[in-house]
Amino acid sequence: MSDRLDFIEHDDIWDKLNEECGVFGVYNHPDAPSLTYYGIHALQHRGQESAGICASNGEVFTNHRGMGLVTEAFNNNELSRIHGHISIGHVRYTTAGESKLENAQPLIFKYSGGNLALAHNGNLVNADQIRYQLERQGSIFQTTSDTEVIAHLISRSGLEIEEAVKNALRLIKGAYALLVMTEKKLIVALDPNGLRPLSLGKIGDGYVVSSETCAFDTVGAKYFREVEPGEMVIIDEDGLRSERFSGQTQRAICSFEYVYFARPDSDIAEINVHLARKRLGRKLFLEAPIEADVVTGVPDSSISAAIGYAEAAGIPYELGLIKNRYVARTFIQPTQEMRARGVRMKLSAVRKVVEGKRVIMIDDSIVRGTTSGRIVQMLREAGAKEVHVLISSPPVMNPCYYGIDTSSREELIAASKSVEQIREFIGADSLYFLSTEGMIEAIGRHDGSNNGGHCVACFNGQYPTEIYEDTKSCTEKC
Amino acid sequence: MSDRLDFIEHDDIWDKLNEECGVFGVYNHPDAPSLTYYGIHALQHRGQESAGICASNGEVFTNHRGMGLVTEAFNNNELSRIHGHISIGHVRYTTAGESKLENAQPLIFKYSGGNLALAHNGNLVNADQIRYQLERQGSIFQTTSDTEVIAHLISRSGLEIEEAVKNALRLIKGAYALLVMTEKKLIVALDPNGLRPLSLGKIGDGYVVSSETCAFDTVGAKYFREVEPGEMVIIDEDGLRSERFSGQTQRAICSFEYVYFARPDSDIAEINVHLARKRLGRKLFLEAPIEADVVTGVPDSSISAAIGYAEAAGIPYELGLIKNRYVARTFIQPTQEMRARGVRMKLSAVRKVVEGKRVIMIDDSIVRGTTSGRIVQMLREAGAKEVHVLISSPPVMNPCYYGIDTSSREELIAASKSVEQIREFIGADSLYFLSTEGMIEAIGRHDGSNNGGHCVACFNGQYPTEIYEDTKSCTEKC
Amino acid sequence: MSDRLDFIEHDDIWDKLNEECGVFGVYNHPDAPSLTYYGIHALQHRGQESAGICASNGEVFTNHRGMGLVTEAFNNNELSRIHGHISIGHVRYTTAGESKLENAQPLIFKYSGGNLALAHNGNLVNADQIRYQLERQGSIFQTTSDTEVIAHLISRSGLEIEEAVKNALRLIKGAYALLVMTEKKLIVALDPNGLRPLSLGKIGDGYVVSSETCAFDTVGAKYFREVEPGEMVIIDEDGLRSERFSGQTQRAICSFEYVYFARPDSDIAEINVHLARKRLGRKLFLEAPIEADVVTGVPDSSISAAIGYAEAAGIPYELGLIKNRYVARTFIQPTQEMRARGVRMKLSAVRKVVEGKRVIMIDDSIVRGTTSGRIVQMLREAGAKEVHVLISSPPVMNPCYYGIDTSSREELIAASKSVEQIREFIGADSLYFLSTEGMIEAIGRHDGSNNGGHCVACFNGQYPTEIYEDTKSCTEKC
Amino acid sequence: MSDRLDFIEHDDIWDKLNEECGVFGVYNHPDAPSLTYYGIHALQHRGQESAGICASNGEVFTNHRGMGLVTEAFNNNELSRIHGHISIGHVRYTTAGESKLENAQPLIFKYSGGNLALAHNGNLVNADQIRYQLERQGSIFQTTSDTEVIAHLISRSGLEIEEAVKNALRLIKGAYALLVMTEKKLIVALDPNGLRPLSLGKIGDGYVVSSETCAFDTVGAKYFREVEPGEMVIIDEDGLRSERFSGQTQRAICSFEYVYFARPDSDIAEINVHLARKRLGRKLFLEAPIEADVVTGVPDSSISAAIGYAEAAGIPYELGLIKNRYVARTFIQPTQEMRARGVRMKLSAVRKVVEGKRVIMIDDSIVRGTTSGRIVQMLREAGAKEVHVLISSPPVMNPCYYGIDTSSREELIAASKSVEQIREFIGADSLYFLSTEGMIEAIGRHDGSNNGGHCVACFNGQYPTEIYEDTKSCTEKC
Repeated sequence: MSDRLDFIEHDDIWDKLNEECGVFGVYNHPDAPSLTYYGIHALQHRGQESAGICASNGEVFTNHRGMGLVTEAFNNNELSRIHGHISIGHVRYTTAGESKLENAQPLIFKYSGGNLALAHNGNLVNADQIRYQLERQGSIFQTTSDTEVIAHLISRSGLEIEEAVKNALRLIKGAYALLVMTEKKLIVALDPNGLRPLSLGKIGDGYVVSSETCAFDTVGAKYFREVEPGEMVIIDEDGLRSERFSGQTQRAICSFEYVYFARPDSDIAEINVHLARKRLGRKLFLEAPIEADVVTGVPDSSISAAIGYAEAAGIPYELGLIKNRYVARTFIQPTQEMRARGVRMKLSAVRKVVEGKRVIMIDDSIVRGTTSGRIVQMLREAGAKEVHVLISSPPVMNPCYYGIDTSSREELIAASKSVEQIREFIGADSLYFLSTEGMIEAIGRHDGSNNGGHCVACFNGQYPTEIYEDTKSCTEKC
Repeated sequence: MSDRLDFIEHDDIWDKLNEECGVFGVYNHPDAPSLTYYGIHALQHRGQESAGICASNGEVFTNHRGMGLVTEAFNNNELSRIHGHISIGHVRYTTAGESKLENAQPLIFKYSGGNLALAHNGNLVNADQIRYQLERQGSIFQTTSDTEVIAHLISRSGLEIEEAVKNALRLIKGAYALLVMTEKKLIVALDPNGLRPLSLGKIGDGYVVSSETCAFDTVGAKYFREVEPGEMVIIDEDGLRSERFSGQTQRAICSFEYVYFARPDSDIAEINVHLARKRLGRKLFLEAPIEADVVTGVPDSSISAAIGYAEAAGIPYELGLIKNRYVARTFIQPTQEMRARGVRMKLSAVRKVVEGKRVIMIDDSIVRGTTSGRIVQMLREAGAKEVHVLISSPPVMNPCYYGIDTSSREELIAASKSVEQIREFIGADSLYFLSTEGMIEAIGRHDGSNNGGHCVACFNGQYPTEIYEDTKSCTEKC
Repeated sequence: MSDRLDFIEHDDIWDKLNEECGVFGVYNHPDAPSLTYYGIHALQHRGQESAGICASNGEVFTNHRGMGLVTEAFNNNELSRIHGHISIGHVRYTTAGESKLENAQPLIFKYSGGNLALAHNGNLVNADQIRYQLERQGSIFQTTSDTEVIAHLISRSGLEIEEAVKNALRLIKGAYALLVMTEKKLIVALDPNGLRPLSLGKIGDGYVVSSETCAFDTVGAKYFREVEPGEMVIIDEDGLRSERFSGQTQRAICSFEYVYFARPDSDIAEINVHLARKRLGRKLFLEAPIEADVVTGVPDSSISAAIGYAEAAGIPYELGLIKNRYVARTFIQPTQEMRARGVRMKLSAVRKVVEGKRVIMIDDSIVRGTTSGRIVQMLREAGAKEVHVLISSPPVMNPCYYGIDTSSREELIAASKSVEQIREFIGADSLYFLSTEGMIEAIGRHDGSNNGGHCVACFNGQYPTEIYEDTKSCTEKC
Repeated sequence: MSDRLDFIEHDDIWDKLNEECGVFGVYNHPDAPSLTYYGIHALQHRGQESAGICASNGEVFTNHRGMGLVTEAFNNNELSRIHGHISIGHVRYTTAGESKLENAQPLIFKYSGGNLALAHNGNLVNADQIRYQLERQGSIFQTTSDTEVIAHLISRSGLEIEEAVKNALRLIKGAYALLVMTEKKLIVALDPNGLRPLSLGKIGDGYVVSSETCAFDTVGAKYFREVEPGEMVIIDEDGLRSERFSGQTQRAICSFEYVYFARPDSDIAEINVHLARKRLGRKLFLEAPIEADVVTGVPDSSISAAIGYAEAAGIPYELGLIKNRYVARTFIQPTQEMRARGVRMKLSAVRKVVEGKRVIMIDDSIVRGTTSGRIVQMLREAGAKEVHVLISSPPVMNPCYYGIDTSSREELIAASKSVEQIREFIGADSLYFLSTEGMIEAIGRHDGSNNGGHCVACFNGQYPTEIYEDTKSCTEKC
């Protein structure tokens, strides 16, 4: 499972994450705001910068947004002031820079049709173009988020809400799992490529919708079905109905969700994440069978793959690396010497496990390589005789424009270095990356479409949508 | 590894913990306060209520104590105001009731010999008796901690500091890993039974001392040796020297440190905790070989034993239970229905892993049984066909008077119920506890003394020290 | 001087205030953000709910907004992150209900012309009408503030900024002292009636603008001149130039600024507030010469009038009522009995001053009458033989639509009760209100226009602008 | 009235204050903790560093202590957890250095007789000597407060509580207004010179005791009588009884309480503070009749004296100096230029009042002279033609050992400079200090004893108690 702590110490991993979000919605439940609270708490790994909930009792909205974790943003009884049977919630990523409450979601606004609340996970690729057009027409923008662009498109159309949303969806390009709430309806939409995960569940006489299925268990809902690419689902007093807003859909679900981002107890497109990771580990063994004494994974997200490798290899799986559960977001780092020690506050190698051993260290990915290098060094200092680094995904060589911020090509070590050069950089005895084909096969979705129905653009550069030139230079949105 | 989150949701586990602490000290290092900060951070799992550091520059003390985690107590640049080359630190347990800054350590006081700072892990069994005597003689007490009792004894003696400490140690009975700092010295002592762990390390030209060795790696120190039972170590400008304050010593190290409490990357009495737990899992298989499809452990403390069992049994080890990394100390629980759901905020069963399977669930211990019951139910709801609960320690039938608060006998389910009755209570298909002999053998200390040199009083009632009647009714100290 | 503490305990006074704000701006000073910080701090009495500063360095904006007092909103070094030589700031009123950061100003937005920041004191009377039109045209609104309406009007025009602002000013009606900042300009405007105060000052080679002149002394600026009704002042690299956006202007400055709201050390339209209040007291004596032993004023805003009355009457002025300087915004009020005592936490009568005396108690106004009644009772309990209440303004009988929220007519005691009925309600021996003519004369502006150039609508119902029906039912904006 | 804000900006005034405290107690009232909360809130001007309340329900104590103002220390519903019909509370001064919760009162401790809580206002002159003796006998000290010394003396005696307190009182020298609470009794004592104020009141069937009578009005109690010098009052289920613990008593009440420290609505030794100050102003006129146009006082503590002077002189009293009510404890001061401006955030001169005028500025005292100089400059910059500074007390030439910290002689400007030199230093046209005799006469206590029953040691060096050499060099206690 991914972990906010990574944001602090793992500079590699920090980059990967900083545009993700999580969304959760409820229709027709007396405890809708509480369910939403628990729901976004279960999605906390998808964003730690801010959290928000907006509910409707059929007439008016009540809402709260705050900075930090869900439990921090709602630490003052704010939940008790949110009422209604419809509710949507959002958790937003952490950034290195100044994070602002203004950017927290759900975004709430008033327009000629009444009140609207929007929660969005993903990244549009033509937001700048649309924003430019809207400004030309006199619109003002108070945030930098893509969500405000969608709000303007809905309001500008002058249509009834369902048509207005549909109209907006036809204009935007990119990745989006979108929740729109009016006083009386919950509207759910997924982009034509289904780049982000989004699932529907049932609870009592009502419905829930969530970025990941792990939230269903927490709130006591039952999995119902996936939201389909290019589908808009309207839930109101007439029940749930589905519309297609795009005729050209082809699933290209983000493979990084399986590799790293999602919680292991979630099923993404009905494939369990932990088991997919275990298969990634097995496949890794088939592609790179290394002789060694112990297999260890970098906690937490690489544990499943490590278990899979160990099982397939018949080599013992061990806790060779331990994570301190109390690592916080802020550290004092009084001296340079101390700063170097700082990384050891988070991870430690277990000497008695690795001493004198040939160690296979499984990690899910390498972005910049710095952290991997530190972990290899830590294992060596603890006495490891050999350290073989096996990565359960291919080299990340291209930026992501859909919400997983792997930043510019310059920072991606695999964009400029060969595998052998990376091995040298991180100081490993050997280094192997899983092949793209192996990864797709291991994830195990039997989808006849391109790349097995996954987006693997960061690995092979095949983007499932058009990419605008402007977007390439400007990707700082959620 | 144990985890503060357990305190909130796991009522079973809460009880186990609430009297533990962690201590860390440095002698002769220019960054002594920073090292101590990192040291007690590495010991955070031993106490989350409060944290404190006191340093001496050879002339005067500077110090700070605060509530909460180390990063919370020192969140305001307080560390930068603590200076010196000698330093001691302390983390204190969390309690359910009101926790007070007054009880935070190190305890600092002034007496005729100058300034003293004390940090203490453990629990005295004759503190009430001594306190009564001291009050008769006119002493006043501002806290309820045993540490204040020790301070009075030192001050009252009128002796030079080393003799004064030695004199005090001869009067107190029970469990203690004690650090005493004067302006110029660091004095370290362990009770005659060595009930609590305490290790010495070297760093540069100086020394460190820590409740657990995991802190040595964090600060860059090298393990030197254990503090011996009944030993007082004095570190000052003449170097390190050892004295025995008790002739009757016999190691009886707390077996719960191995089973549950210590960090897996620590070596307790030179035995690695993770490997000891893995052996507990193997031994559990030898004693109770169950036929099943998957083995899963309750995270985080039972993972090692689960891996050990799975390896020995040749059954796949799986992540059948996932822990949410973002569980905070405070939750809102608006309705009763929500409260029941609350436990699912912390743990969830992975349906695709356990559905239709015969599951072996390894846990380290059962205290009250409520949490175990909830986890079994969670596994069944996720579709487990059978749930076999295997515990990597014997039934806890007796209270601990040495700092692990397993409370009164009334709350210990094993004190009043048979194994079969407990099985029924938690709703498992079968339940097995490791035997005391098996546990001792698996931990693997080759110590000829009683119970292999462990305290197993909570399992078999054989207390290594005298127990005073009064103590039995009053154990709320650290 | 008015006082935030009033908001808590004085329910009368609370109502009076809750739509006021303060604005401050700087053009061309290297310390512009710091000057703005000190400036809005000096205007703190005009609003305690939130504070914000936005600066431009000629290229980009930096800003911060926060809840609470200026020192609370900027308690974390936020000021150090705001840079530029142009800057505007805002303090916003406190409300009883939930106050939101979303409503804090300056409002910052992006439109086709670049970035704009707006800070506004006052209340528009046709905001709802404009908002309705804008929504029809597809605009979305994220706040309920009039300022957002102005922002849309500016953006919609498609004109260059100066023309765009002028165009917007011609569309809005009501009270406004408005600051508009672009990357390179500071634009300042006052409504055609000059209902709110707004003064220009000079500092070094730059300019400052402030709701009240008291802020000039604090920052070391010199008073330059008033902004005229219907005037738009543009300050940029070409210096300061003035334009008239309205041909029909007639000053109608809010008389309540003199009576109650402004700081005594401010000059409003070049009339010093303290001296005006003293003249109100003198005039009160001329209209109502009461025989008594002592004159006392309700602190802090009625002290000046009380001194004036005492001087004119030749009766000693005494501190018969003392205000506790430490009254905070939040109180615990455990029991009903305690709640009644709560009011005594703020004010107390000085027994030795009033005991056995005939007391004249000067207050600046009566809105609902509850607080006045409590103070009269307090004086009686302290032994006052007679309590004569003299009010240095006429009875408030009509709501204010320009930013001083005297709420609906139902809550105004003078709207439904005669002076004699009010006297009975508050339990005074006699009660007298200053006449409207007397008030105008005493303030002392020698302006030939209607009501001496004051708005006295709340006293006599003569509103200087058109009032829209909708506005009457909806006045909750700033 | 004194004001916490002075601590920040007025370096003169800061010094005066930093050892004062306020105490309040209740016996036999169902709302004792709430009454105590309101009581210490009314005494807030006597100390802003920390606040605490301890109550007894006849069996056990409940208590809370926190940093900051009463409303800050009790901002989290802590009051609701304090129960009992007996209660004592304490507010403690602010210091420039690090303030610690450890030093907050009431001090609570356990001794052979049970539980005791102590709250103390004043300063002992032989605390160091007693502390030395106690340490010799093996006592440990955890704070630097005199109160802990008293606690040890009570505990050491081995006597019943009343005798034990009496015994302790006979050993300590200096200034103390002391409250001692046991499970069932409230014991109140005042030093033999009655240096600090302490009054008894009645409420229902119970009693209250307070440093100042202003707290009685707040809680609805009636003044009963003064606690006499050398008197110990015991209040328990047998009612209230009085004992004398010292035969040699002579009132020497601190004259600074009248001049500066106490609230104007308090009666100190049955003399109202506001009226006393007014008489100080009148007497000042008699001693120094200056020809001028306006009289103004430095707010808040010099307002009464200014009114008295103005009345006697027949010169108008004006608000020539205005205090910003929102000055907080912490300010950002980004540049040196800004820092100089900082003082203007607190006080401002009213130009229209002083311009072209001969101004008499009344202040209550001058300690270091820096602030006075700044205010004179401020008046001149606002256009004052002449500034005559008249001080309503004599020059402070000697340190206070009884709790008013006027620091060492070096910092007292009057200790090293003549009146003419001080005048020059502060830049006034003339400067006059009230004579000691005039001050005593004006306060108006008709007490035949020395100095009219006042302590005027800081003015004339006649200390009413013995002063120990050690004390002179070490006065940092409360």
